[in-house]
Amino acid sequence: MSDSFFHPVSGFELPRFAGVPTFMRLPLVTPDHPRFSEVEVGLVGVPWDSGTTNRPGPRHGPRQLRDASTMIRAQHQATGLRPFEAANCADLGDVGPNPADIQDSMARITDVYDNLHGAGIRPLTAGGDHLTSLPVLRALARGAPLGMVHFDSHTDLFHSYFNGQMYTHGTPFRRAVEEGLLDPKRIIQIGIRGTMYDSEDRDFAKAEGIRIVEIEEYFQRGHADVMQEAREIVGTSATYVSYDIDFVDPAFAPGTGTPEVGGPNSYEALQVCRGLAGLNIVGADLVEVSPPFDQSGNTAYLGASIMFELLCAMLSQTPD
Amino acid sequence: MSDSFFHPVSGFELPRFAGVPTFMRLPLVTPDHPRFSEVEVGLVGVPWDSGTTNRPGPRHGPRQLRDASTMIRAQHQATGLRPFEAANCADLGDVGPNPADIQDSMARITDVYDNLHGAGIRPLTAGGDHLTSLPVLRALARGAPLGMVHFDSHTDLFHSYFNGQMYTHGTPFRRAVEEGLLDPKRIIQIGIRGTMYDSEDRDFAKAEGIRIVEIEEYFQRGHADVMQEAREIVGTSATYVSYDIDFVDPAFAPGTGTPEVGGPNSYEALQVCRGLAGLNIVGADLVEVSPPFDQSGNTAYLGASIMFELLCAMLSQTPD
Amino acid sequence: MSDSFFHPVSGFELPRFAGVPTFMRLPLVTPDHPRFSEVEVGLVGVPWDSGTTNRPGPRHGPRQLRDASTMIRAQHQATGLRPFEAANCADLGDVGPNPADIQDSMARITDVYDNLHGAGIRPLTAGGDHLTSLPVLRALARGAPLGMVHFDSHTDLFHSYFNGQMYTHGTPFRRAVEEGLLDPKRIIQIGIRGTMYDSEDRDFAKAEGIRIVEIEEYFQRGHADVMQEAREIVGTSATYVSYDIDFVDPAFAPGTGTPEVGGPNSYEALQVCRGLAGLNIVGADLVEVSPPFDQSGNTAYLGASIMFELLCAMLSQTPD
Amino acid sequence: MSDSFFHPVSGFELPRFAGVPTFMRLPLVTPDHPRFSEVEVGLVGVPWDSGTTNRPGPRHGPRQLRDASTMIRAQHQATGLRPFEAANCADLGDVGPNPADIQDSMARITDVYDNLHGAGIRPLTAGGDHLTSLPVLRALARGAPLGMVHFDSHTDLFHSYFNGQMYTHGTPFRRAVEEGLLDPKRIIQIGIRGTMYDSEDRDFAKAEGIRIVEIEEYFQRGHADVMQEAREIVGTSATYVSYDIDFVDPAFAPGTGTPEVGGPNSYEALQVCRGLAGLNIVGADLVEVSPPFDQSGNTAYLGASIMFELLCAMLSQTPD
Amino acid sequence: MSDSFFHPVSGFELPRFAGVPTFMRLPLVTPDHPRFSEVEVGLVGVPWDSGTTNRPGPRHGPRQLRDASTMIRAQHQATGLRPFEAANCADLGDVGPNPADIQDSMARITDVYDNLHGAGIRPLTAGGDHLTSLPVLRALARGAPLGMVHFDSHTDLFHSYFNGQMYTHGTPFRRAVEEGLLDPKRIIQIGIRGTMYDSEDRDFAKAEGIRIVEIEEYFQRGHADVMQEAREIVGTSATYVSYDIDFVDPAFAPGTGTPEVGGPNSYEALQVCRGLAGLNIVGADLVEVSPPFDQSGNTAYLGASIMFELLCAMLSQTPD
Amino acid sequence: MSDSFFHPVSGFELPRFAGVPTFMRLPLVTPDHPRFSEVEVGLVGVPWDSGTTNRPGPRHGPRQLRDASTMIRAQHQATGLRPFEAANCADLGDVGPNPADIQDSMARITDVYDNLHGAGIRPLTAGGDHLTSLPVLRALARGAPLGMVHFDSHTDLFHSYFNGQMYTHGTPFRRAVEEGLLDPKRIIQIGIRGTMYDSEDRDFAKAEGIRIVEIEEYFQRGHADVMQEAREIVGTSATYVSYDIDFVDPAFAPGTGTPEVGGPNSYEALQVCRGLAGLNIVGADLVEVSPPFDQSGNTAYLGASIMFELLCAMLSQTPD
Repeated sequence: MSDSFFHPVSGFELPRFAGVPTFMRLPLVTPDHPRFSEVEVGLVGVPWDSGTTNRPGPRHGPRQLRDASTMIRAQHQATGLRPFEAANCADLGDVGPNPADIQDSMARITDVYDNLHGAGIRPLTAGGDHLTSLPVLRALARGAPLGMVHFDSHTDLFHSYFNGQMYTHGTPFRRAVEEGLLDPKRIIQIGIRGTMYDSEDRDFAKAEGIRIVEIEEYFQRGHADVMQEAREIVGTSATYVSYDIDFVDPAFAPGTGTPEVGGPNSYEALQVCRGLAGLNIVGADLVEVSPPFDQSGNTAYLGASIMFELLCAMLSQTPD
Repeated sequence: MSDSFFHPVSGFELPRFAGVPTFMRLPLVTPDHPRFSEVEVGLVGVPWDSGTTNRPGPRHGPRQLRDASTMIRAQHQATGLRPFEAANCADLGDVGPNPADIQDSMARITDVYDNLHGAGIRPLTAGGDHLTSLPVLRALARGAPLGMVHFDSHTDLFHSYFNGQMYTHGTPFRRAVEEGLLDPKRIIQIGIRGTMYDSEDRDFAKAEGIRIVEIEEYFQRGHADVMQEAREIVGTSATYVSYDIDFVDPAFAPGTGTPEVGGPNSYEALQVCRGLAGLNIVGADLVEVSPPFDQSGNTAYLGASIMFELLCAMLSQTPD
Repeated sequence: MSDSFFHPVSGFELPRFAGVPTFMRLPLVTPDHPRFSEVEVGLVGVPWDSGTTNRPGPRHGPRQLRDASTMIRAQHQATGLRPFEAANCADLGDVGPNPADIQDSMARITDVYDNLHGAGIRPLTAGGDHLTSLPVLRALARGAPLGMVHFDSHTDLFHSYFNGQMYTHGTPFRRAVEEGLLDPKRIIQIGIRGTMYDSEDRDFAKAEGIRIVEIEEYFQRGHADVMQEAREIVGTSATYVSYDIDFVDPAFAPGTGTPEVGGPNSYEALQVCRGLAGLNIVGADLVEVSPPFDQSGNTAYLGASIMFELLCAMLSQTPD
Repeated sequence: MSDSFFHPVSGFELPRFAGVPTFMRLPLVTPDHPRFSEVEVGLVGVPWDSGTTNRPGPRHGPRQLRDASTMIRAQHQATGLRPFEAANCADLGDVGPNPADIQDSMARITDVYDNLHGAGIRPLTAGGDHLTSLPVLRALARGAPLGMVHFDSHTDLFHSYFNGQMYTHGTPFRRAVEEGLLDPKRIIQIGIRGTMYDSEDRDFAKAEGIRIVEIEEYFQRGHADVMQEAREIVGTSATYVSYDIDFVDPAFAPGTGTPEVGGPNSYEALQVCRGLAGLNIVGADLVEVSPPFDQSGNTAYLGASIMFELLCAMLSQTPD
Repeated sequence: MSDSFFHPVSGFELPRFAGVPTFMRLPLVTPDHPRFSEVEVGLVGVPWDSGTTNRPGPRHGPRQLRDASTMIRAQHQATGLRPFEAANCADLGDVGPNPADIQDSMARITDVYDNLHGAGIRPLTAGGDHLTSLPVLRALARGAPLGMVHFDSHTDLFHSYFNGQMYTHGTPFRRAVEEGLLDPKRIIQIGIRGTMYDSEDRDFAKAEGIRIVEIEEYFQRGHADVMQEAREIVGTSATYVSYDIDFVDPAFAPGTGTPEVGGPNSYEALQVCRGLAGLNIVGADLVEVSPPFDQSGNTAYLGASIMFELLCAMLSQTPD
Repeated sequence: MSDSFFHPVSGFELPRFAGVPTFMRLPLVTPDHPRFSEVEVGLVGVPWDSGTTNRPGPRHGPRQLRDASTMIRAQHQATGLRPFEAANCADLGDVGPNPADIQDSMARITDVYDNLHGAGIRPLTAGGDHLTSLPVLRALARGAPLGMVHFDSHTDLFHSYFNGQMYTHGTPFRRAVEEGLLDPKRIIQIGIRGTMYDSEDRDFAKAEGIRIVEIEEYFQRGHADVMQEAREIVGTSATYVSYDIDFVDPAFAPGTGTPEVGGPNSYEALQVCRGLAGLNIVGADLVEVSPPFDQSGNTAYLGASIMFELLCAMLSQTPD
């Protein structure tokens, strides 16, 4: 069982609306903190949206997610897991980006995650737009390509935008495959939908062996069956989980930049995470929460609930 | 058939946006009104939220519910029931609380409901936070404990908060069972979900014989099957219905203080009420609508639609 | 394949947020434009809500729909259809109404659509409240009554309002049947729900042979089965499609004047359109988007997505 | 001193958020009420906006104004006047309009006000759009034309709109002068501003002797000096006061259909009313509050505060 | 000059939207922190609104104020003062209240402030509703009554509410005078306005010698002259500053529970603070920011700007 | 007088809410339009915010400004000027930026403005963040440095951000002076306020001879006196006007990324533009309108009103 230092403040003692908001009311343990080396799972914010081609805002995501996450309690309803007792979890603060320079920002992010990786800390990231995943993967996939379970309404496999722009939130996984960070045959993308520019991304996926579960198939088979296939595809090797909040229907998650109607509801948004239990998850992210498009914080609350599910999935596999 | 005095104003005659808003455009019949004694079902507001441990606002609920309820028409779509012709219904006004004193407010509420109970008026209450149910039950359960069908995402069975605080919106039914107002073996709680502090409330339920239908079971079985069980549990004896708006997924009902994602949609929100038909309902409430968190009034409109369904359920049993 | 003049601007070239917003980023081709005669499908705005008996606002619908529609891309996800290559599509601008005179406005609308009809342009209309459909049908149904697939939560078959008011958004299809514009035996209304004034509209439907699929039946059978019946009812003759955004549950489409809870979600909102493929559609409309009740534009984005589906349905039948 | 029946409920006894909302928490006394004949000043709602040429919504004004007016207390801060003790005041309910017929609605309004006028009740009206003033004036000006102090950003003196539409919210005072309801030489319009179509309205004013105080003059002279002139222009004869909420700058009153930036602040919004003290006011209105454009209720709260000031101005002259 | 540990993070280095939000990006130094004893001015949150008689929400104030305060930079524009270099400033976290027990909460608050007072830390408090000031004063005024400069639209000098409720946000300074915490002859209340229940609070003020500057006098004399009088009234002895955000007009600060129109603008909101320079300020608070009524954060940003001015005023007197 | 082709559509004919929204309802005349060469003043959108260091969103500015500008009529209230008759004005569409590459975007912007400059068209730009001004000035200042009247709360004269980032919305005029595009001795910056990082920007201004009118001086002297000085500083030579919407207080213009409280109101926002009459204005811009932070469109409406004033100022000097 983890040290009580790493336990979140209970809402029975301090009301949820009180206190400086950290992720899930965990202690803030930045790298210079004396107990940094004891952290096992680190919740990290990446307030950055320079890869956004459409409506901006995910730079404000981590802060709103922290605020909303103070509504999260200590025990998983369905499994009884108490994640903060299962491992030392902490809020590691934010990576400081350079809003005006994409390459510099990516380098900064990779540096921070290299450090975490070296310290044996598994990261659970709150984005940021989806380009965030690329510099994170550059740190986590050193040595061998990872598998990936990817929840999204878009493939993010496009070649480029705007006459040759290679790094946007629509291209991270094309780059990650090209850079050898992901093993395309161990990638599954779930929930894909929306009108299309053309079929260029699908053609790439097909050529590389990436499995795409479009929304119609998803609804016909149901989440349990789809997640069974996901587990088979990624297997027992090291796997990354990337969760774009626009996987969920915009009625449940309006605070995002490129919504696509016709998506899963919030019940399914949680259930698919439960389907990750037992996988070898080396890191996970929840991206594209855009507070300016939902000042109510409802999207962020769903996002925080998903982060809790992802955390439980990451810890479900840990033998102790 | 009821007296036309008790019929609501039709939107064919006076547009829905016109007129001083009473519940469902019914006449306002306060206790000093000459026709008070003729009322059979009374719609009552309890603008009170002193039991709220989290985000406040249900004190503003009754007014917003009245406003939204002017969109309700006279006939039930599926059954054809015209409730305002089936019984004399009226808006009985609000109970005046003392926002700064919980005990005084509870006494005031119980007094008003004692009066209604004595006059043979069945109450349909618009809260208020969920602590509202406790002083109402104190009036309605005089003599014998009631059964209860309880729609909610939380059990509200906690022992206490904040170092010994016994009366909050998280404790009403623990108190009601302790006070003998409810028969725990005739309680069913439906829709329970969300992260948990611990299992203390579930342990109490188990020990007392309270039936909890968690959300996963609810979705697996479907609302028809669950409501069949609910009817069996409460049987033909006197039963109370308590409906917390956070039973419904927050995409459909964002205006509440402690939302839990992953809940039923608005279609199910209505269908479960239809499953109450034929029960011996001595009173019902719809609580936790918090207007500051949904100024659009959409949550209140769903709440008013649920109140109409509850009203029809209360009258479905009335032989005429 | 259509002329590139009629192709929308791609988001890969010009970001979606840039440019004067026309429907789906199509060229604006008003009747005095030199290429007007080449248009095959015309997207038309009718910014008018004088028939609204309840909450106003659809007069602002076309503009918000245009704005949101710039998020639509060129290819249908499920079928691969590229509608803007299948036919010459254009934004034909708005019909200028007279906000203070219903009859004058209806005459203006019919004039414009007579002109389109004469030019062989099939119209896809963005309303406007539902009374919009009546003057449109007066132009399109010259010669022979049309069939109609009608998605809505209301029948819009009422006789009159407010002591004899014959032209409101609750009466268009009563008038259309009376005027011989629609063949009642080839009308199907899907999604009907909500509290009722009385049964007068249902009685009319029954007497005339109009098929009403209430929401309970809709959910029990599923959209595929219902749409199969719809195709059988309207057959291969000329058919109009009228889509009231309040068909969809208000959690997905809050920006409308007379919402009814308990409706289909956004996935179904799209799927029912796909069930129209192959019909002989002479025109379609999407009405009752009311921006003042959803300034976020989320409702309009769903509306624009539905318009894209309707457009694809209109073109699915076109042999080339 | 007035009868206690006519005193509003105090916020010291019943919290402001409780109770069915009537104007300023006064008793609701409709014409069939036994004490109707005792009313001296009647607060009336006219939920109607068929004259609106631009953004709709004032049909929802009276209800939101009633809600906000429950924040108003019993005593004027600066003068100490307790208006509800100075005269019998009551909420007389709403006039039921016909949303689809302007002429019918105007007739209905005039009928109601004829009745009030006959009963010796001075009306304080909550609109509704500005066309509301015309049918009210038709009742109040029977016998002799009235003077008018008019606060607005627009003159509302236009000849017609949309090819001959004579009755819109931009024309009421042109019609009222033509119909002999207002004496143009006893009209002063204060706060006029905004871009102009042309000078047609100003030419009419000049020809008729209507005094227009444009916003630049208003700010240069200050409200005290302008109101001194206003009192001189209308003199001691019967005078109407018409207050369009768009007189106030839209930062203070965003909830209106045709805002004009560069207007007075809320302090001045109240002070100009105080400058009306001592006039012979036969009726007053506050119009153009449009709730859909300010769901927060802040505009309505300013509107209710202005209504309180107008009420005090109406009663300041009453020797007792 | 202060230690760099106590300097806020610069927006030139870490973008303002990044990082866990503390007040003005200062270090979080709770009482168990090794450097707690070095703090000279402590920014403290009191997330509590149990004294609210009207619209609730200030319990959420401190968190929103922290978020908004990350927009504050290090140097005062007009004076050039760099407060974080002038003294060791820190965010001391929140006082944990008991939302369901007023007396318990007040005891908790006084305990925390006793501790600060004992440690020689001057507190700058972010409320919370205005009852917050009472338990703070109980800690700060030990020994001798304080003077007070009070910015507000209400006197908060009422005797009681709701049949004898002595502790609400409308009574703190009545209690404080009665308890000998404040010297009434050294109290000035500025900006008082709004409709009144009666004159009971004014009578108390008059009897005790409290100086009230009503809004009319304030605007006639101007802020410079009024603040000159304020400085004379409180003199050089120990003084508290209490700033209710509803001092400011609700167009500038809509996020509050009991707004009063006709108040000062945001420029004056800052200038009055500058008029405090040189006083002997032992503590200050900014209260009644209610996030549910302004989710945009604009009110909180004004509140944070006022807190910065109050901080500069507190430090302007410190000879170094 | 201009050709009627260049006249905006009147709201008397087509309601303001109808029609595809162009700036001020002017014709859309892109460079390939046959009448492009006749344009004298071109309204251009630059939907771009890559220079934003804080809250993003101005990329959505031009579209919301177009929408709001349909509320603008044809004649200036105070001067009677009818600008669309004084010169051929047109909406020239948007410059297509590259959201992911600052240098590429700046090159694209300069190219477009070079073309306009070559065609003798004076541009009135709707941004975009404030970095927009730099590439515009590069086109307009070819040959000789310009004078500038700059309304803003910030100087935008900073050296760099984030460790050497030279091109952000906080640096454009530092760069413009360094590049010789602006003559620092002919620059006046009005309205400067807000907390400061340090004095580095002020030091630069002082060294270069740039005149800064801080907000305190502005309010003390009044807008007329300040604008008199502005006219003297820029003299009769070619001058650019740059207007950041955050010059105005955020109560009037909340939709912006870096608001500073304590600013001018909307009346002054317009009056300062009128003080530009007679200057030799070669171009003007209105920047930093950020729709995600004000979905109501109120900020954009103020922005459109300012654009109309700027247009009139540009045309006030044109002898005809």
